[in-house]
Amino acid sequence: MPLSYDVAAVGNAIVDVIAPASDAFLAEEKLDKGAMMLIDTARADSLYKRMAAGIEASGGSAGNTVAGVASLGGKAAYIGKVAKDTLGEVFRHDITAIGVHFDPTPMVGEEGTGRCLINVTDDAQRTMCTYLGAANALTPDDVDPALIEAAGIVYLEGYLFDPPAAREAFAKAARIARKAGRRVALTLSDAFVVHRHRDALLDFIAGDMDIVFANEVEVCAMFETEDFGAALKALSAKVETAVVTRGAAGSTLISKGERADVAAEPVAKVIDTTGAGDQYAAGVLFGLARGLTLAQSGRLGAIAAAEVISHYGPRPQTPLKGLAEAAGLI
Amino acid sequence: MPLSYDVAAVGNAIVDVIAPASDAFLAEEKLDKGAMMLIDTARADSLYKRMAAGIEASGGSAGNTVAGVASLGGKAAYIGKVAKDTLGEVFRHDITAIGVHFDPTPMVGEEGTGRCLINVTDDAQRTMCTYLGAANALTPDDVDPALIEAAGIVYLEGYLFDPPAAREAFAKAARIARKAGRRVALTLSDAFVVHRHRDALLDFIAGDMDIVFANEVEVCAMFETEDFGAALKALSAKVETAVVTRGAAGSTLISKGERADVAAEPVAKVIDTTGAGDQYAAGVLFGLARGLTLAQSGRLGAIAAAEVISHYGPRPQTPLKGLAEAAGLI
Repeated sequence: MPLSYDVAAVGNAIVDVIAPASDAFLAEEKLDKGAMMLIDTARADSLYKRMAAGIEASGGSAGNTVAGVASLGGKAAYIGKVAKDTLGEVFRHDITAIGVHFDPTPMVGEEGTGRCLINVTDDAQRTMCTYLGAANALTPDDVDPALIEAAGIVYLEGYLFDPPAAREAFAKAARIARKAGRRVALTLSDAFVVHRHRDALLDFIAGDMDIVFANEVEVCAMFETEDFGAALKALSAKVETAVVTRGAAGSTLISKGERADVAAEPVAKVIDTTGAGDQYAAGVLFGLARGLTLAQSGRLGAIAAAEVISHYGPRPQTPLKGLAEAAGLI
Repeated sequence: MPLSYDVAAVGNAIVDVIAPASDAFLAEEKLDKGAMMLIDTARADSLYKRMAAGIEASGGSAGNTVAGVASLGGKAAYIGKVAKDTLGEVFRHDITAIGVHFDPTPMVGEEGTGRCLINVTDDAQRTMCTYLGAANALTPDDVDPALIEAAGIVYLEGYLFDPPAAREAFAKAARIARKAGRRVALTLSDAFVVHRHRDALLDFIAGDMDIVFANEVEVCAMFETEDFGAALKALSAKVETAVVTRGAAGSTLISKGERADVAAEPVAKVIDTTGAGDQYAAGVLFGLARGLTLAQSGRLGAIAAAEVISHYGPRPQTPLKGLAEAAGLI
């Protein structure tokens, strides 16, 4: 079967609410700066009441990533669960408007479309509180085998390792992709996800993954070490391609004995780091899907991440294709 | 009665959907660049489907203005109609989070909270298509006399001159304010509003207004002339304080024989002109409410407008109070 997509992603379909916040506000609300935590409806309501005025924009880690792939000129598809409500319409509109294939059966019921309350401090760090809502209801039935078979790389968002039915959906997607000769990628998403599911994640990686994305904190949590070099080595021993980010310190990609260390792209002013990791993944996945070298793929990721941290909002506002062309990468 | 508010505003409560667009898209959709037009639900749905991915942010002309007054450190209240839905919650959250008093009875029924689909072209011009929804249902019952009496200036948004019940709400607000010795201000909002209601607007201004805001196009439409100087003179003959804006060419304020010509504030890069006039009005109203000179009030307006056009979204992202202090105005 010919490939219709460079990347197909499975993730939490989330609309972000982004507002400025002070360190004092984070302390009052007992929020750990830079972290993501899950909250229930009651906490979402009470926290939203106290947050500053902000903007709403479609988000969700893997959703941001496929939006980035499309912005680079790639072909992408998305699998995720929204409710039949205004925010669900917004999510569907934004991801399809950028050119991503997304054709969900919206969930009808009590739960609204997922929301992420993001407090951005003056240092551009984002602190995220996610109310999953409908996103949490993803099941194996939502994974269309034909879509997975038609994608060069299937990209799975680690956040979805929490709900058992979604984890089954991951297993189904990985199985179909492997059988069709496609590559399977996973992002660890969050250190708490790693803490909660370390053994299961390690099994999943060893058995089914070709590519794993992690940031420094996540990869160290995975291998229970504070030695980044040791963690990186351990990850690259488990998976064909290991991709690890270190914020402003750049990123490292290791695949089949080859290693690329990539510098972060300079940014005039960092406004909001929301989506930095997601856009980095978009650049790398697009590069790998199109047969670019490790170093070129990492550079694409760095360029995409630099674009998204230079403004509020988790998805590119300047077409990434133009930036990648200007850098001579595509 | 002591004054609780510098400004109380009555306006269309609207949530903006802001997305980049090309000139070709405007042509295809038969949209006049820079204009505001009213659309029905069907047109809103079909236009939204074809728009690019964007962000959502609370808007509404007078809502933006009182948000600006609050950002300057002023005390402000808002009267407008939202539905009991997600966007209504977003509108209420954002305006109260910035410190504006807003305590509506949300409308329950078919109509959703009002939306404005804003296409922003590369030249930073915004072209607005408004689906009014619940905003259109404002009636005199929504005007709380105690709130009007407690505000130094009542600010009325010309867009609401269209629906008869809202126009009655204007008349009620003006009557109460005048009786309590307060000032009443009106913005003409839009050349089409002026064309549709010229005689009624002229009567309303002559009988009940102390301050009138207009841009160049609106004031020329009002007096059916292409001679800006003549239109300005005609307006200032009808109302104690006339405030007219000319975009990058600055603004002119005329009051009781005094005239101030104010330059536009320089901006490194104009991103999105949405909300420029609204923030200009915020600066001027705050200045006039606090007894600043005409020139100082105009300068405050120019500073507020410059902030809002330097980013996407119709309300300030940097507290205007700090900018006004840095300029030595407050």
